[in-house]
Amino acid sequence: MLSKSQIKVITRLKQKKYRVQDGLFVAEGLKVIKELLDSNLELHQLYTTVSFDGNLDREQRITEAELKKISFLTTPNKALALFKIPASKTIDSDQFVVALDSVRDPGNLGTIIRLCDWFGVKELICTTGTVDCYNPKVIQATMGSITRVNVSYLDLERYLKETRSPVFGAFMDGDIVYKTDLPTIGTLVLGNEANGISPEIEGLVTNRITIPRFGALQAAESLNVATATAILLSEFKRKG
Amino acid sequence: MLSKSQIKVITRLKQKKYRVQDGLFVAEGLKVIKELLDSNLELHQLYTTVSFDGNLDREQRITEAELKKISFLTTPNKALALFKIPASKTIDSDQFVVALDSVRDPGNLGTIIRLCDWFGVKELICTTGTVDCYNPKVIQATMGSITRVNVSYLDLERYLKETRSPVFGAFMDGDIVYKTDLPTIGTLVLGNEANGISPEIEGLVTNRITIPRFGALQAAESLNVATATAILLSEFKRKG
Repeated sequence: MLSKSQIKVITRLKQKKYRVQDGLFVAEGLKVIKELLDSNLELHQLYTTVSFDGNLDREQRITEAELKKISFLTTPNKALALFKIPASKTIDSDQFVVALDSVRDPGNLGTIIRLCDWFGVKELICTTGTVDCYNPKVIQATMGSITRVNVSYLDLERYLKETRSPVFGAFMDGDIVYKTDLPTIGTLVLGNEANGISPEIEGLVTNRITIPRFGALQAAESLNVATATAILLSEFKRKG
Repeated sequence: MLSKSQIKVITRLKQKKYRVQDGLFVAEGLKVIKELLDSNLELHQLYTTVSFDGNLDREQRITEAELKKISFLTTPNKALALFKIPASKTIDSDQFVVALDSVRDPGNLGTIIRLCDWFGVKELICTTGTVDCYNPKVIQATMGSITRVNVSYLDLERYLKETRSPVFGAFMDGDIVYKTDLPTIGTLVLGNEANGISPEIEGLVTNRITIPRFGALQAAESLNVATATAILLSEFKRKG
């Protein structure tokens, strides 16, 4: 049986301030939970309607009705787990790094983390204005990739001032990415969904790049930030 | 004042059977509605909390509270419009065509329509098992691109049997797309989110392609269908 206070402690993790305070985040669904259990992440508590292999110490059987009370999903998916938010790791800037300037949509951040994982990008840097990577919607969208990409929140302006490798930024008016020499070490900056890269960060970009539009003049105004990241990562990596 | 029957007629358009029966679909938000008004689509009725340029005949002022009653969005955005579903157009198969085999997620379909628009792909073919392009979530995700891409629902197996140009399909085990000669005329097939391309369609694919994974063995299992489409369209078009 889940107590009222247990339910409260879980559901308030929807808010970042409680995730920070309690050092916990929520993951849902068998597939995502199993991926996280297989990683270095530390399980705090598992609430499940089905039995898990391995007889976890911290497993509590609950009913479907109880799961519905604690789930953040429209369609709850068999189990919900609380994991400890890991300590932040140092950034290895001597490789290819992706940086996000105030990306707000959890689905976009989750998709970008999954893309980094696919393309072997180990370091993802976010401005503090970017959505929290332990937001439940981000965790669900990453499909487990959160365990393989080091996501760091920091002062991006300061980081870019200190880096010695080139800083690429995605703009509507940059050089055509297909015709640009792309290095294997450097930073690729993507901006906010509505406003793009902020002026402070823009000033630190050394190489402005763009994905050209092939449609007519009346075509789509812009690409979504996650699909733009997909295309740009593919371009950086295809040459390697 | 919105009557109860008006509210019912609008909100039931969330269901495909009523969209088909009434020949209407819903678009929300000033930006999306303006893009649709600028196209060949025929407005049936506009419900708005703010004034629109152009004094539309079919404009009805409503309150924020009324908008909340008819809106499909969590955060209603100033106006909601009903447009007539246009008659289906014939497919011009003598160009580059994208085909979807049972893509179910409205956000994915919306993103793919927007990508087609960006990359100048005029024809998008969908199996009847693919989510309806007039689903409100699809319309919102396309950001107006629905007016510039011809989306057709048909028997894809039959279509592919009849086409004389090459049929490319995205698989986990195809030829590496970066090393494949890509034509300017042909069909690119993308499959269902969970199961990929169905066996019947797979048998009609002449060229199996894949986006290679650059991460370690333990990396992401797959790419989301919309991000895979982004990368593949970029590959087909960058050579043109």
